[in-house]
Amino acid sequence: MTASNYAGFQVQPSRKGVCVNENKSGAFDLNPDNQGGYPLAGAPNLTGHSLAVERWLARRMLRSLGDPPINIQLWSGEVVEGAAAPHIARIVLTDRAALWKLASDPEYQFGELYSQGRLQVYGDLVALLELSYRGSSSDGTFREHLTSWRYRPHAASLRRAKTNIHHHYDIGNDFYRLWLDDAMVYTCAYFPTETTTLEAAQQAKLEHTCRKLRLRENENVVEAGCGWGSLALYMAQHHGVKVRAFNISHEQIVYARERAKALDLESRVEFVEDDYRNIAGKYDAFVSVGMLEHVGPGNYEALGAVIDRCLGPDGRGLIHSIGRNRPIRMNAWIAERIFPGGYTPALSEMTRIFEPYAFSILDVENLRLHYARTLRHWLERFERSADQIRQMFDDRFVRMWRLYLAGSLAAFSTGWMQLFQVTFNRTMCNDVPLTREHLYCAR
Amino acid sequence: MTASNYAGFQVQPSRKGVCVNENKSGAFDLNPDNQGGYPLAGAPNLTGHSLAVERWLARRMLRSLGDPPINIQLWSGEVVEGAAAPHIARIVLTDRAALWKLASDPEYQFGELYSQGRLQVYGDLVALLELSYRGSSSDGTFREHLTSWRYRPHAASLRRAKTNIHHHYDIGNDFYRLWLDDAMVYTCAYFPTETTTLEAAQQAKLEHTCRKLRLRENENVVEAGCGWGSLALYMAQHHGVKVRAFNISHEQIVYARERAKALDLESRVEFVEDDYRNIAGKYDAFVSVGMLEHVGPGNYEALGAVIDRCLGPDGRGLIHSIGRNRPIRMNAWIAERIFPGGYTPALSEMTRIFEPYAFSILDVENLRLHYARTLRHWLERFERSADQIRQMFDDRFVRMWRLYLAGSLAAFSTGWMQLFQVTFNRTMCNDVPLTREHLYCAR
Repeated sequence: MTASNYAGFQVQPSRKGVCVNENKSGAFDLNPDNQGGYPLAGAPNLTGHSLAVERWLARRMLRSLGDPPINIQLWSGEVVEGAAAPHIARIVLTDRAALWKLASDPEYQFGELYSQGRLQVYGDLVALLELSYRGSSSDGTFREHLTSWRYRPHAASLRRAKTNIHHHYDIGNDFYRLWLDDAMVYTCAYFPTETTTLEAAQQAKLEHTCRKLRLRENENVVEAGCGWGSLALYMAQHHGVKVRAFNISHEQIVYARERAKALDLESRVEFVEDDYRNIAGKYDAFVSVGMLEHVGPGNYEALGAVIDRCLGPDGRGLIHSIGRNRPIRMNAWIAERIFPGGYTPALSEMTRIFEPYAFSILDVENLRLHYARTLRHWLERFERSADQIRQMFDDRFVRMWRLYLAGSLAAFSTGWMQLFQVTFNRTMCNDVPLTREHLYCAR
Repeated sequence: MTASNYAGFQVQPSRKGVCVNENKSGAFDLNPDNQGGYPLAGAPNLTGHSLAVERWLARRMLRSLGDPPINIQLWSGEVVEGAAAPHIARIVLTDRAALWKLASDPEYQFGELYSQGRLQVYGDLVALLELSYRGSSSDGTFREHLTSWRYRPHAASLRRAKTNIHHHYDIGNDFYRLWLDDAMVYTCAYFPTETTTLEAAQQAKLEHTCRKLRLRENENVVEAGCGWGSLALYMAQHHGVKVRAFNISHEQIVYARERAKALDLESRVEFVEDDYRNIAGKYDAFVSVGMLEHVGPGNYEALGAVIDRCLGPDGRGLIHSIGRNRPIRMNAWIAERIFPGGYTPALSEMTRIFEPYAFSILDVENLRLHYARTLRHWLERFERSADQIRQMFDDRFVRMWRLYLAGSLAAFSTGWMQLFQVTFNRTMCNDVPLTREHLYCAR
């Protein structure tokens, strides 16, 4: 077998089949300049014995994914090959128990074992995850049924919601600053062109959102789930509105208030450390970008009631959320380790926010490929800061977050996940532009 | 009381309260040039007696609509006033039984009695219907429950579907030619500007639809429910695709085939007189404009299966349909007299076409105000040809169709009905433009 090139990775002959090497600390390189492949040096030296049943199990796992161009190297050094070649990635299992755990609950254990370094990936992690998404029937059958009893979405209480949000968002602004854009926008960006930078794309997303809301000077806007405050501040600064922005992440609210002060926008933007369910008052517009994923489908009607309560007769709104092609529970590992209480709805489920209150859905835009791009940027920046992040936390944290970012990228690029921006208004309000041209041509 | 002006109608004092007069034959004038109001001459001369309970009943009906600026004149000549004034329309009931029928089943009997001329409207029929939509709680409570047992949507069989379609579409192309645009497009137009004519707006709709489908030369397109063939012919003529267009209306198919021949497009556009469920073959794009209203929610999954069967891996599609803010049955009279078997779905119901097959919904555009505009044009043209239509059919037919067109206009202008254009594709297909700018700026 000679060296061959596949998807940007130069693969070299190894003892059995081909081997693409994980670089040090399990990191992989997404830099498109690095097309030369990885040197063979650094491949793990594994010893031990595997049973025939274990090799059969590994083969069976590959088959269940549609025999993708991946191979699995066991702790014994033996390599089980997928049918397709040339291979673009190798999974290394460092011990016997790792194989059995993976076989018993692949969806959850892949993440657990990867985080622990007992499952290593040599080659292109994103491509491997994309292959696994493509191999499973779209939106899941095999994975779907395996562990579906475990991760039923629920309606989070106020206290539970606070704990869930704390888990993800309060781990340190310094960490997020390492790989987000300058404005700290931790939601899908909007790339008007192929060459738009992440920084510009996040600003474009803020502007795109404001145009959809048709904001007018001095209007009152309420934002549910405001992150580090970028949208609230942008709306006030560039569209002259007054904003009350809610968030239950303490670290984010503190940061957002500092920014408001620095920008001298304290009189126009109020950051409230409270749950969306406690929103009071009347507003011209409601906006929520990237919060619905934490609301849980059991609370969608309650969210609709909040919007119904707070919007005036000409009220309009926008909800931006990760979505699915059809109702399906969250990935088990993500729901446990990354987003406890998280749930990404199908459009049919999102309508439960609007239909009980007869809001008119005016516009739905699916931006999933923009999220894939956004995640590629985040992952590249994350990798550039991996050593620093390892020092801030530990290796397990780096591997866990790498897998989360790479897996999300793969989910959006393969159509496993969607990103819906839904614009709506009061049904009797006819103050709607004739066309959506104002979103584009005036830019 | 002196003469006053309201909504373009000059109202004159009458024996009791104000009276706005229906012009001859029950027609009303939508021409915006006619701002002078109607002369008092021509007011009906009614005689007879009404009971106190009957006057109470009439008052109660007005109250249930939120006391709009309408009054009701009984067969006795007595006028029951709504609380608001000045009045913009008067309902005249010509006999006692008409009142009792109307009170017992207002939703259905309004249409029946109006068609029979036993309920006449003096003044602005559209404004009266708009008031009644606004007066009922949005998307119906009072009307909703009164007769809901009667009009459950059902999944039409092939034979039933044929009968339903025959009822509406096979009543004569000459009739439709009197009030549709030149290209005979009997679905919501698209008005890029305030001054776009109906003819131009229908062409703009065809182009808007094609752009959403991203048609490429020599691609194969299947159309389900093609009307008189305008979209199929437009796609072939302006986008160079090959089209198979299905329809079960015999009159429409005959007409469409003649047009294809006249345009020398017979080799590129095939009109098939068959049900959408019998679509066979593989296509690059699926399109259906204004057919879903006849499919019935029980058949949505079957429609999805047809699309799934006939679309290739890069397949994409568009469904254009009247919709609702939430699931609600059709207006009883419309379902009986105008569109038997018809049902206009909420977006949550439309998702049943896509979700079982994991299609990605890419774009939803609500064009309801475009439909209100379209209907205003149709109604104006219809009124201009009312005498001719009366000769072709009879007075009952004219009154029935006037009410249908005016009621539809009111339903769209008050947000009672929506118009959803839903664009979708195979979930794994990433051949999607980054933004929707191509729909607008290149025009």
